[in-house]
Amino acid sequence: MTHAPPPIKLSRRWHYAREQAISFLMQQAVENTGVVSLAAGLVDFASLPVGETRAAMTTLLDDDAAARQALQYGTTLGSDRLRGLVREHLARLEGIAPADLGIDAEQLILTTGSQQLLSLVCEVLLDPGDICLVAGPTYFVFLGNLNGVGAETITVDTDDGGICPQALEQTLARLETEGKLDRVKLIYLVSYYENPSGLCLAEERRGPIVEIARKWSKRQRILVLEDAAYRELRYDGPALPSLWSHDAARDTVIYTQTFSKSFAPGLRVGYGVVPRDLVGPLCDRKGNEDFGSANFNQHLLANVLESGLYASHVEQVCAAYREKRDAMLAAADRYFADIPGVTWVHPHGGLYVWMSLPEHVETGFESELFQSASHTHGVMYVPGELCYAQPLAERARHQMRLSFGVQTPAGIDDGMRRLAAAVRAAV
Amino acid sequence: MTHAPPPIKLSRRWHYAREQAISFLMQQAVENTGVVSLAAGLVDFASLPVGETRAAMTTLLDDDAAARQALQYGTTLGSDRLRGLVREHLARLEGIAPADLGIDAEQLILTTGSQQLLSLVCEVLLDPGDICLVAGPTYFVFLGNLNGVGAETITVDTDDGGICPQALEQTLARLETEGKLDRVKLIYLVSYYENPSGLCLAEERRGPIVEIARKWSKRQRILVLEDAAYRELRYDGPALPSLWSHDAARDTVIYTQTFSKSFAPGLRVGYGVVPRDLVGPLCDRKGNEDFGSANFNQHLLANVLESGLYASHVEQVCAAYREKRDAMLAAADRYFADIPGVTWVHPHGGLYVWMSLPEHVETGFESELFQSASHTHGVMYVPGELCYAQPLAERARHQMRLSFGVQTPAGIDDGMRRLAAAVRAAV
Repeated sequence: MTHAPPPIKLSRRWHYAREQAISFLMQQAVENTGVVSLAAGLVDFASLPVGETRAAMTTLLDDDAAARQALQYGTTLGSDRLRGLVREHLARLEGIAPADLGIDAEQLILTTGSQQLLSLVCEVLLDPGDICLVAGPTYFVFLGNLNGVGAETITVDTDDGGICPQALEQTLARLETEGKLDRVKLIYLVSYYENPSGLCLAEERRGPIVEIARKWSKRQRILVLEDAAYRELRYDGPALPSLWSHDAARDTVIYTQTFSKSFAPGLRVGYGVVPRDLVGPLCDRKGNEDFGSANFNQHLLANVLESGLYASHVEQVCAAYREKRDAMLAAADRYFADIPGVTWVHPHGGLYVWMSLPEHVETGFESELFQSASHTHGVMYVPGELCYAQPLAERARHQMRLSFGVQTPAGIDDGMRRLAAAVRAAV
Repeated sequence: MTHAPPPIKLSRRWHYAREQAISFLMQQAVENTGVVSLAAGLVDFASLPVGETRAAMTTLLDDDAAARQALQYGTTLGSDRLRGLVREHLARLEGIAPADLGIDAEQLILTTGSQQLLSLVCEVLLDPGDICLVAGPTYFVFLGNLNGVGAETITVDTDDGGICPQALEQTLARLETEGKLDRVKLIYLVSYYENPSGLCLAEERRGPIVEIARKWSKRQRILVLEDAAYRELRYDGPALPSLWSHDAARDTVIYTQTFSKSFAPGLRVGYGVVPRDLVGPLCDRKGNEDFGSANFNQHLLANVLESGLYASHVEQVCAAYREKRDAMLAAADRYFADIPGVTWVHPHGGLYVWMSLPEHVETGFESELFQSASHTHGVMYVPGELCYAQPLAERARHQMRLSFGVQTPAGIDDGMRRLAAAVRAAV
């Protein structure tokens, strides 16, 4: 028997990355079957596209040459064919012709979910101490990415219309006064049905935010990272133009989207449309990480898009989620309306209802509410405090992200009933 | 029209990562059809497992619940089912019972190819200035990973049996004298049919190298990263035990392997077996990068392994590559034997023949030989100088990595004939 060796000395970068709540939560969601999870960001099980996948797969594997092409290595940038189809798809969403997108082919990059694009942007852009401006609340996994590269994350005042342009400008002015404007490199926004708030960035704010980023790009460019992961999950309300569409020169906004929510997360195909001068750096970095996401999945998805199965599937998915959204809002009315001080957002798309409790009721992993909800009442949610970048003491700690993605309408009702019982006991 | 914005200020980390040769080469290989590529690390086209994939896919998609499970998000660590099957597979390779592997389930991690595992290890372990010891030549993509985190890469004397234990010990002693032993965190080795040299680390060196790593782990652990990507591509010669098998305590060797070479690179499924105290850090980092590789592919591959299709496919693949290896060696004899000062390695597995020219004949991208080979003679190879970590002036610059992976036996013969013509003109 050998003696125990000395400890592994981990990198500083690892120390930046505190334990990621996402891994904890996903593990719980996948493994813990005894609890009704309103926490999981998983997608609707029933509408997962088995038939569509089978059809696209048959087409792919019946063509021997195409099948071999798909089973072979691809490129770092991703399949030319899928990139062409995504380009057409994006143009449809934008309501313009593909030729009018104003981008070269290589400005569209395929990644392992849009998460990898978000991560790559942080890697190539942010040094420790560099600044990213975010909404509050915002997507908690991305806050982990910012921590992971040692960035400073500053929250801009946010209301029902998302980040306020005026507050954004005030924040930038303050940072300039403090001599920190040169460290501001990124503004991160979830522009459609935000995770966690369910809100859209107001249409009239989109152009001004791009303008503000340009105006304050004094010594270095301030890029806007538009996370449009939920764009296609629209249940009612208008189809808003992207923030990216306001960036006529295509040099300020990085646009990311994914097929995880609208088709199947198990394929892990996301994409980004990026300024020309970011293509090389992002590919260098992606070359180091994996030199290309799964080529097979890209070819499969190309068949899905080309056959028209994608468009019909998105309609189905939206119908399924609309029903679930309505089930959650009805359950909120049914079980929470008479609990004093409880409010919630009515989302027009996405997967989440954002609920606020009276300010004295904490919702964090360590809170009495979370413990009694998960252990006594058998229901789980994502604590709202995970979705803020401020030091813990300065965060709102009385909110919850409730997902209607994974449960059936009946399960949603059951989960909301359980949660209301836990909340009622805590208020 | 808006004025041009100021430049994007990229991170220091991006600056560490010089342009990756891998992306350039893969792009060439996939797109450039006019040239016979002996450069591409792509796999044999004809033996790509279309039938096997179809069978596994039918099984997967005919079971509605299993199909939905596969299309849903997975976990950061990867599918439990595939991880269990890989465990059994690894035990078979090691010639022991799965229970005797001496690892907990979570010590086996699934990644996007083994490349992602290599990248993750660098991320969580290495700060700028930390030291990794490597063979010379070694896998050039991994040298890019080391550069990408700002690590110092030191080459240990290497011969036909791989890294010399004595030289490894001398290098560590020298580093201790220089006060740099505390910065040594990693020893990287391709243990089977190395990319690029085609050589195996000699059996009698495997145990001693693990012992040396343990002995010199004075203040921090020195980990050994065993890259066994080509282990299953064995055409003749003995099946060697892994380096990892010599690490009885399972705390010093990180073992990585992939299904890219033995099954299909388009699926991008690789794995690592890691010391217990690296599991958390690697998952934290992978959570940030993608919170899990493609779950669908993991379920597909689980069916491939479980059905026995994998084992029979590996036999087929090895038969195909054996024929190609023989074709390349025969062509080398045919076209190069009479060129003075040209020698090459006879590999017993893997995808590469490593060829040395007279020392005055440079082979780099900028060299006359590379230019005339690719433009006049229509053949491409990987310049050997990419596979060394030393400053360019100190590297051997007269070698070539010749891949027999992607061409047919006839194409190999054609490529070798073209290459010999170019070499003959340059000698």
